[in-house]
Amino acid sequence: MTDSALSNQETWSLLVLFAASVAVIANTFQGDGEPLVSSLAFGGVAFSITYSLIVWLKGTFMKANLKGRDMSKVKKVEIPETMGGVCAAVYLLLMVLFMPILFYSDIKSATADLDPLDLENGHIQIDTGRVLHRFPLGKLATYLSAMLSLALVVILGNYDDFFDIRWRHKVLIPGVASMPMLAVYFLTYGITHVVVPVQLVPYLGEMVDLGSLYYVYMAAIAIFCPNSINILAGINGIEVSQSIIIAVLLLINDMVSLSKIPGTAHPATDLHLFSIYLLLPFIGASLALLRHNWYPAKVFVGDTYCYFAGMVFAIVGILGHFSKTLLLLLIPQIINFIYSTPQLFRLIPCPRHRLPHFNARSGLLEPSMTEWQQPPSIGTTWFLNILARFPLLPLIKLVKDSEGHILKSSNLTILNLWLVWFGPRREDKLAIEVTAFQLALGLMGLFIRHELALLVFSQDNRA
Amino acid sequence: MTDSALSNQETWSLLVLFAASVAVIANTFQGDGEPLVSSLAFGGVAFSITYSLIVWLKGTFMKANLKGRDMSKVKKVEIPETMGGVCAAVYLLLMVLFMPILFYSDIKSATADLDPLDLENGHIQIDTGRVLHRFPLGKLATYLSAMLSLALVVILGNYDDFFDIRWRHKVLIPGVASMPMLAVYFLTYGITHVVVPVQLVPYLGEMVDLGSLYYVYMAAIAIFCPNSINILAGINGIEVSQSIIIAVLLLINDMVSLSKIPGTAHPATDLHLFSIYLLLPFIGASLALLRHNWYPAKVFVGDTYCYFAGMVFAIVGILGHFSKTLLLLLIPQIINFIYSTPQLFRLIPCPRHRLPHFNARSGLLEPSMTEWQQPPSIGTTWFLNILARFPLLPLIKLVKDSEGHILKSSNLTILNLWLVWFGPRREDKLAIEVTAFQLALGLMGLFIRHELALLVFSQDNRA
Repeated sequence: MTDSALSNQETWSLLVLFAASVAVIANTFQGDGEPLVSSLAFGGVAFSITYSLIVWLKGTFMKANLKGRDMSKVKKVEIPETMGGVCAAVYLLLMVLFMPILFYSDIKSATADLDPLDLENGHIQIDTGRVLHRFPLGKLATYLSAMLSLALVVILGNYDDFFDIRWRHKVLIPGVASMPMLAVYFLTYGITHVVVPVQLVPYLGEMVDLGSLYYVYMAAIAIFCPNSINILAGINGIEVSQSIIIAVLLLINDMVSLSKIPGTAHPATDLHLFSIYLLLPFIGASLALLRHNWYPAKVFVGDTYCYFAGMVFAIVGILGHFSKTLLLLLIPQIINFIYSTPQLFRLIPCPRHRLPHFNARSGLLEPSMTEWQQPPSIGTTWFLNILARFPLLPLIKLVKDSEGHILKSSNLTILNLWLVWFGPRREDKLAIEVTAFQLALGLMGLFIRHELALLVFSQDNRA
Repeated sequence: MTDSALSNQETWSLLVLFAASVAVIANTFQGDGEPLVSSLAFGGVAFSITYSLIVWLKGTFMKANLKGRDMSKVKKVEIPETMGGVCAAVYLLLMVLFMPILFYSDIKSATADLDPLDLENGHIQIDTGRVLHRFPLGKLATYLSAMLSLALVVILGNYDDFFDIRWRHKVLIPGVASMPMLAVYFLTYGITHVVVPVQLVPYLGEMVDLGSLYYVYMAAIAIFCPNSINILAGINGIEVSQSIIIAVLLLINDMVSLSKIPGTAHPATDLHLFSIYLLLPFIGASLALLRHNWYPAKVFVGDTYCYFAGMVFAIVGILGHFSKTLLLLLIPQIINFIYSTPQLFRLIPCPRHRLPHFNARSGLLEPSMTEWQQPPSIGTTWFLNILARFPLLPLIKLVKDSEGHILKSSNLTILNLWLVWFGPRREDKLAIEVTAFQLALGLMGLFIRHELALLVFSQDNRA
């Protein structure tokens, strides 16, 4: 289980992928540079390094006591925990290495600008530094703030994984980590107007300035994304697979948006490219993690991965100025969060883990049930009965005694709800179905956003 | 030992310090802002938070198995390890919160610049973003890159503390982490000329352009600072106390330099202020850590603290453009490194730990000895004998058999050397003496730099 070596076949495949990617990257250092091609190659590098490190470090993690039992298996073996931290660290370091590529053409044009006379006259240069007026320092600051926010969320996520920070403390972690990004948004862009839907223009005008509320909104997104991925968890592969699907949907959104923009000088072009540069290596690193975390899992990902992935999305959405589109792609997470609220706010008892129940006899997952220490109040009983009797699709499963008192109710996560609706199934089947659901809803969301947005807004967002 | 609560007196003192500091900070949001005063108050906040968190988290660290035995005590109790990570995390988060204060006057002047007509015409603003021409984006990027380099070194330091990364891998960790800072140096400043000493001007000219070698030099500093602090370790409090002394010396250097600069518009003013803003909260957080790590230590600091502290110095030195002065303040570390090389490069056997030997009978520390499995070669014997017979101050202590073959030699660290020279002493006395040595050498270095530099260079560095 913790064999810390790559097989021969793995070694060769990864080596070929790595070498090919590096060769592609090296080749982009000419002309104006090809950051897009290079970014794809960085995805390849991220995959090969993450894959190898996870295999090499398995034993080390087990020795350091970072391990957990997989409860949804017949043989509940221990496997390494918090491997998502490796994925995040590889991503961060690669994104730092990506900087010279991202700014290659800017560096060229900024340095080409130097008057040869200035260059010879060392004193002038010593006093003034590089000739800056053409270098996009705002873009540089934006990129650095994104990386700093990610690094902070990884540090705090690591502490959470190692020390099990309390729920009410950790829910705000991503909010703290998002501050560099929000600060740079304020300093370099600072727009807090939102476009008003056509139907409301007569009452509110074309734009409404939300002022500082807009920053609260952005911080809320930064808090919601990581935590919502963290609570849609509990079966092998689901944290990583949903993240990859969201990343792919964001990529599609970028490409559709870019295809609609006439010319290349439009400011939105840079924002969507920025988003793509962040997402491609993320997908590469995440695929490597998924390979080891997929059913039957050989490693667990830990909270660090959920925070990290959610923060990547928040950064892309906020700094790319399409946070509404981002929310459209997180509908399963939003549903899961709303559906969970009765338990999160303790209206219904909430056990420490709400993952589906593994039936060792059938080998299938079933909805997990929370037991009521004492029968719920009349109001709660009435509410639960309404949920349970929802036409066609019951929203909860109840177990009652002969007199009709509620003894148990299913835990309120969409994974359990899925099992209530479609019956027991194997862990990987559940993961595939929920991931497919995410993809389908996301594609629908993108269709609405790109094809139907003009029904609600008078102009497509700057395109 | 792991009582995780503050005493009443501690609670009140810390609360008063915290409240006073926050009040000072709140009061600086007027006029042009007072970042310097605010920075000092951030030091107070850093102290109170770090102090409290260390006490509160002791038990958690012990439970998470992050603990180690203090070998230099009669009762070798276990105490929490890697508490420096707490100090570093508090520092990073506070430095993010410091951003609005640092840029307060810039934000004011940048936004004051807006034409009221532009503000009303939302469309123009949507397309162009904030009016930027007066906002110092280079300063913002520099600050962000410093924080990102620190965050990366903390992430990698944490992994080192948790997983014990191998020596040859971890020595380069700070080099990787320094890349954001070097990239921003390249993009915003980019000067690779060095001033030539007067005596060499006839041969080399007034300036020599080191080109990309200059980046190698800066990366070498970023690698040297953290690692050199990491190897001057092994007794209670020494890692933190040397770091605080270096920080104080850098502060003195900043203040002397600022006092020499005529007017406030000089570019070096900003660089020295930047350095002060980074150092004051660092000293605050470190003092809190020292309080718990001082003899007899209640917590250990871990490699994370050494990396973190060294990286703060590297950042201040490199981005403040006074890396040569920085090296002048690290002379004990440089001596310790050079003195250690025979063991680091395995010319002399190197045990895993080289900390001084604790004599349980006397309660004093003595030089620790490394045993030779077989007598050293003739060349090595000759070399060791020369070191041992150095006039007045022997550079090594040897134990020989009756025939003169070397059986043991003292470990090559300045802590052991100090004990060879001045005899056994108690752990805290050794720490105080070596720290005082650091202070004395540093003050001498600053005197040379500021009073005698004109003998070597034709002008004082931009002042």
